[in-house]
Amino acid sequence: MAEHPRELSTEECLERLASHSVGRIVFYADGSPQIYPVNFAVDNGSIVFRTTAYGPLATHAHHNEVAFEVDELDEEHHHGWSVIAHGQAQTLDADDTHDLTILRMLEPWAAGSRTLHIRITPRQLTGRQFGGDR
Amino acid sequence: MAEHPRELSTEECLERLASHSVGRIVFYADGSPQIYPVNFAVDNGSIVFRTTAYGPLATHAHHNEVAFEVDELDEEHHHGWSVIAHGQAQTLDADDTHDLTILRMLEPWAAGSRTLHIRITPRQLTGRQFGGDR
Repeated sequence: MAEHPRELSTEECLERLASHSVGRIVFYADGSPQIYPVNFAVDNGSIVFRTTAYGPLATHAHHNEVAFEVDELDEEHHHGWSVIAHGQAQTLDADDTHDLTILRMLEPWAAGSRTLHIRITPRQLTGRQFGGDR
Repeated sequence: MAEHPRELSTEECLERLASHSVGRIVFYADGSPQIYPVNFAVDNGSIVFRTTAYGPLATHAHHNEVAFEVDELDEEHHHGWSVIAHGQAQTLDADDTHDLTILRMLEPWAAGSRTLHIRITPRQLTGRQFGGDR
């Protein structure tokens, strides 16, 4: 029988966030919610990823309230978890990124010039475990 | 070397959507974008899932513009795909759900009363393949 979801602690959320390298950024633009998968790294508790300087993320996510989600969902066995961060997205300038050794991990999956770095500092971090612990 | 993402055709998007049973609904509420994983079924090209009658999805997604995302992202090999539907979410009343044989597939993963059915009829369906075809 299905179990009630379990709320994850902040520590568990951070752990699961840091153990992954792909998540989904969610923001609001042009009257509609938007979602984009991105590969990311965790730097001092914040989420950092690269994007194109003139794409939708650069145009709409910067200085706006965004959500960022990472999950593991097992369709076959009906269990999994999801961690969601809410906060403001900020672009990083060249000085900010100079010492970010973490950025070496951020090799984009897709070709194209991704010169802009965006940082999300979570104001709120929540997580849930569905269908029992693994 | 990373390849440019490939846009998926509408047919490919529908195929990949129908081959999965867990996705993420995205909407805007209380000044912040929201994202929730849900298990779903495809019925005549629309996305149907169950939720609690008084939860955030029932309160905020109904009659609102939402996005729905399904993906397969391989962190190790840096490839994957994502399909995103945009459209209005509508709750279904008892008459609508009476003949929905698809609903038998919608056994929720988590315990709790999920009596409300929500349908998203995609107005727009887009998809991208990253890092080369599998």
